[in-house]
Amino acid sequence: MIKPIDLSLSPMLQNKIDNLNKPKGSLGRLESLALQIALIQHSASPVLQHPCHLLFGGDHGIEREGVSASPREVTWQQLINYGKGGGGINMFCRQHHFSLRVIDVGVDHQFDLTENSHITDRKIAYGTKNFCYEAAMSAEEYQRALDIGAEQAEICFNEGCNVLSVGEMGIANTSPSSILMHLLLKLPLEKCVGAGSGLTKSGIRHKYEVLSKAVEKFNRCSNKDDINFIIRYFSGFEMVAAIGAMLKAAEKGMIVLIDGFIMTACALAASKLDPNITGYTVFCHQGDEGGHKLMLEKMNASPLLHLGLRLGEGTGAVCAYPLLQSAVNMLNEMDNFAHANITKYF
Amino acid sequence: MIKPIDLSLSPMLQNKIDNLNKPKGSLGRLESLALQIALIQHSASPVLQHPCHLLFGGDHGIEREGVSASPREVTWQQLINYGKGGGGINMFCRQHHFSLRVIDVGVDHQFDLTENSHITDRKIAYGTKNFCYEAAMSAEEYQRALDIGAEQAEICFNEGCNVLSVGEMGIANTSPSSILMHLLLKLPLEKCVGAGSGLTKSGIRHKYEVLSKAVEKFNRCSNKDDINFIIRYFSGFEMVAAIGAMLKAAEKGMIVLIDGFIMTACALAASKLDPNITGYTVFCHQGDEGGHKLMLEKMNASPLLHLGLRLGEGTGAVCAYPLLQSAVNMLNEMDNFAHANITKYF
Repeated sequence: MIKPIDLSLSPMLQNKIDNLNKPKGSLGRLESLALQIALIQHSASPVLQHPCHLLFGGDHGIEREGVSASPREVTWQQLINYGKGGGGINMFCRQHHFSLRVIDVGVDHQFDLTENSHITDRKIAYGTKNFCYEAAMSAEEYQRALDIGAEQAEICFNEGCNVLSVGEMGIANTSPSSILMHLLLKLPLEKCVGAGSGLTKSGIRHKYEVLSKAVEKFNRCSNKDDINFIIRYFSGFEMVAAIGAMLKAAEKGMIVLIDGFIMTACALAASKLDPNITGYTVFCHQGDEGGHKLMLEKMNASPLLHLGLRLGEGTGAVCAYPLLQSAVNMLNEMDNFAHANITKYF
Repeated sequence: MIKPIDLSLSPMLQNKIDNLNKPKGSLGRLESLALQIALIQHSASPVLQHPCHLLFGGDHGIEREGVSASPREVTWQQLINYGKGGGGINMFCRQHHFSLRVIDVGVDHQFDLTENSHITDRKIAYGTKNFCYEAAMSAEEYQRALDIGAEQAEICFNEGCNVLSVGEMGIANTSPSSILMHLLLKLPLEKCVGAGSGLTKSGIRHKYEVLSKAVEKFNRCSNKDDINFIIRYFSGFEMVAAIGAMLKAAEKGMIVLIDGFIMTACALAASKLDPNITGYTVFCHQGDEGGHKLMLEKMNASPLLHLGLRLGEGTGAVCAYPLLQSAVNMLNEMDNFAHANITKYF
């Protein structure tokens, strides 16, 4: 159970922010971010400690339907590559001093774990089932994925981390994300489907048709309104693990950094499982994937960055980290009007 | 004279970027930023060195017309405050390891320079003249301000800096910036005038009327189309020094970081003096000041951040610095498809 954010400190915190020596509100989004971080930590002098990034990998049955521009084997190839430090997420983690944990929850490949000791092995299966025909995972697999995510977040917490970022590698996972957006926000499916890693217009059309048929079949299920059933019917193992990690992180009072389209869909799903998570999530990046802007709007999320990233891996979340540090520095280091002997202006 | 950017390396650089192990274009704005930095440095492995921030301070005759929500004395109070490390720009400079130089070019206050040894004294006058009645500065003062800016940029260059950020402190300086935008981009004045540090709707109306009359009078001058005359008639000393610094920095092949509304107006003015500067400027932040979005659009500038900052001082520019570092890291640290043994995807 996630504790709801205690808003009783809000007036005091807002007063502190308003009396820093700057025109009121002039640090814009950094001010609301500072307020949120201070509320999460229940402190007017919050501290960011030992940021960690969890990168879950998994494959998708739906990939067999040709819904992605990238082939399935890229998932395992990239997971290996993260061990060499040459991936996008590696350089951002190095730059911003994030500990990176790479976890295989469902990649369709047998890794040599001696050669790839950077991969934590929590494989549930060699990819999910194809949700055109059946649920992507069983109820047991779903629970295991949630538990693995929670376990990983707890490991970070125990290491002293209070800022957790979550990312994914799973070819074809914009497809389940689009469906979660469609079903959980009750938006027309065509507004939720985009190009993923690089589909052409006709590719997007094909993807839409495949997903549309899958949803049609799903809608004939008697438990189609059960949130847990919706999530496990469509999601990948890496997505469910991410949901589990987000929920546990919020339960532990950590700040949860949310990346692009797929992680936003997971944060959405997590908020349906426990609405109190919304106080702990910071939406870091609005990408170019069709539907992402709309999904964020419907979630009342105000993303920190708009850089057109669509690499996944959690890159947008880690990239935004210096802004969190800036917000915290504002609270801790900026002088106030009275002390600085400055005429208070507006 | 600024050397035009040599585009001959472009195809090679774009090819390098496209073969890094990520879907083509998936690092979005960071990719175009990386290309620009590489072109400026004429190198496929650029390096950011010793970033510096110049903060010019000056007062404005136009402040007497009640066009700003903040009183004139805030300029000198803040300049003193930067020596205590408690200003917005101080904390961002510390966070991102910028050397900060604070330069008085025209503040309406006699500083005790023994007590405020952080202020470099290049005072030209105790504020500009009121452009409702006459030119803000003489041709001689204008040249001096340009030279001081150039001198300061050169000091940074000689210290090994290749990334220069420029900021300002000068109560009322959104007013001259709005007029530069109006005259240099030939846009209706009302689209160029905003709330500055916090004017109400009627305050903005008053500001518009004051500026409108000043421009009307100016337009009766015979040399009203002379770029240098336009700039010196309206700008503050801190703005002209910023223009001088930007031009010199580009001449030296440095990357020039452009902050919000006022610095964008200065970059616009600089581009009218030497169009080659545009290859060297990185627009770091689009703020909430009315007109800023439009000005950036008209300049074909694609700002890195959209955080609603309106503090000035150059805060938006310094805040964006980690993104430049990310872009450079991408070029230097990200593996390519061939070397990482990853199936090239799109």
